Amino acid sequence: MNKKFVGETAKQSLIVYGRHAVLAALVNPKRRIEKILCTKENATEIAKVSKIPPRIVDRKEIDKLLGNDAVHQGFALFCSRLEDITLDELITLAETKKDCHVLILDQVTDPQNIGAIIRSAVAFDTLALIVQDKNSPLESGAMDKAAAGMIEHLPIIRATNLSRTIELLKNAGFWIVGMDGYAKTTVAELKKGGKIAIVMGSEGKGMRRLVEEGCDIAVRLPISEKTESLNVATAAAIALYEVNKK
Amino acid sequence: MNKKFVGETAKQSLIVYGRHAVLAALVNPKRRIEKILCTKENATEIAKVSKIPPRIVDRKEIDKLLGNDAVHQGFALFCSRLEDITLDELITLAETKKDCHVLILDQVTDPQNIGAIIRSAVAFDTLALIVQDKNSPLESGAMDKAAAGMIEHLPIIRATNLSRTIELLKNAGFWIVGMDGYAKTTVAELKKGGKIAIVMGSEGKGMRRLVEEGCDIAVRLPISEKTESLNVATAAAIALYEVNKK
Repeated sequence: MNKKFVGETAKQSLIVYGRHAVLAALVNPKRRIEKILCTKENATEIAKVSKIPPRIVDRKEIDKLLGNDAVHQGFALFCSRLEDITLDELITLAETKKDCHVLILDQVTDPQNIGAIIRSAVAFDTLALIVQDKNSPLESGAMDKAAAGMIEHLPIIRATNLSRTIELLKNAGFWIVGMDGYAKTTVAELKKGGKIAIVMGSEGKGMRRLVEEGCDIAVRLPISEKTESLNVATAAAIALYEVNKK
Repeated sequence: MNKKFVGETAKQSLIVYGRHAVLAALVNPKRRIEKILCTKENATEIAKVSKIPPRIVDRKEIDKLLGNDAVHQGFALFCSRLEDITLDELITLAETKKDCHVLILDQVTDPQNIGAIIRSAVAFDTLALIVQDKNSPLESGAMDKAAAGMIEHLPIIRATNLSRTIELLKNAGFWIVGMDGYAKTTVAELKKGGKIAIVMGSEGKGMRRLVEEGCDIAVRLPISEKTESLNVATAAAIALYEVNKK
């Protein structure tokens, strides 16, 4: 049954694990809940947020389901993946705002980094996350765990062509800001306010050339010469923190 | 042999893994190198930084050594742990500086978070990291991997009593700044310059009361109401980024 779940319905379903991730998914009406597994001591917490009775299992059974290294804290939830939104929907949403920002990730592939970025994005009132469909992992348990429940609050767009997406955002009044370690301007020197799209590449390679060329300005984070780069999730968090400053 | 290594010399030795972590450890003269394991394709990279010939092994042999989930990239290094410095040494070092900052972690126990914090601390010119000896994990492969080689550049102090350490730092001219989600002042509002010690508690519980009482001021990061807290490594990175601003 597990095999069938992971295989046949892989595009629509996943196993969310970890306390924060599971409790947040359970209260999101957009999730279709298939079943809840939890250890005995977690049943009360589940009952507070969901009417669906969980199956009480041993910790080891969840270990077996997810592998020994998933820090599931005795919570596992079989449910539907969150639906993406479209760029049109985002642009319509942005029309109602004077100041807002979105984050575009080019070539960031590690689910844990993406999850950590989602957590920070919600903390800093990011309107939406845009990733490239082809290279970006689908929502997964590891991503949701790193997002600590915050994925329920962040609209995500999977774009076929990031350069085209950037063009359309420009037409919608967004100022496109690329993160680049060699830029002259720092992110703190950016003019505050308006509509901003932050673009980040991967840690190793940065943005692809065409994506970079679509940016209105390149900015960097000032870091020590001892360091080649920051972790991509850390860099994203600081950039979003800065653009969200009033 | 592996058992002997992990057991008998556990306090002095460890296995560093991952490209950046291993290459950085190899060029640190403070490390006593025991042996290097790497896959065939990584031998050239090792040879560029070390005269010690590595043992060429299959990826699977390193997997077996570290477990399947360690992202070792075909690099493993048996070597000595880095030595801590003392608070006296730190204070002597700080005497030569007009502006500097240190980071104190109270109750942060996850090695990966600590490693990520070390990486950010070096990026933002943090003078040293102070942890509580009893509750803080020793240097480990997972910590070094998350630090991406930067642990070679950051002096670490393991303090027996953090409240006493804070007192001594105060006497040495440090302004003690505690991170607290409920504080009125934001970290961006802190006066720049001088000697600053940032104190951070764990994600769940924050600082312990006695540690908190030792702080001169409490500051927070402004985050959305949707979010309970940031990841501790993310919060540390942003705080260090702010205090390092000129």
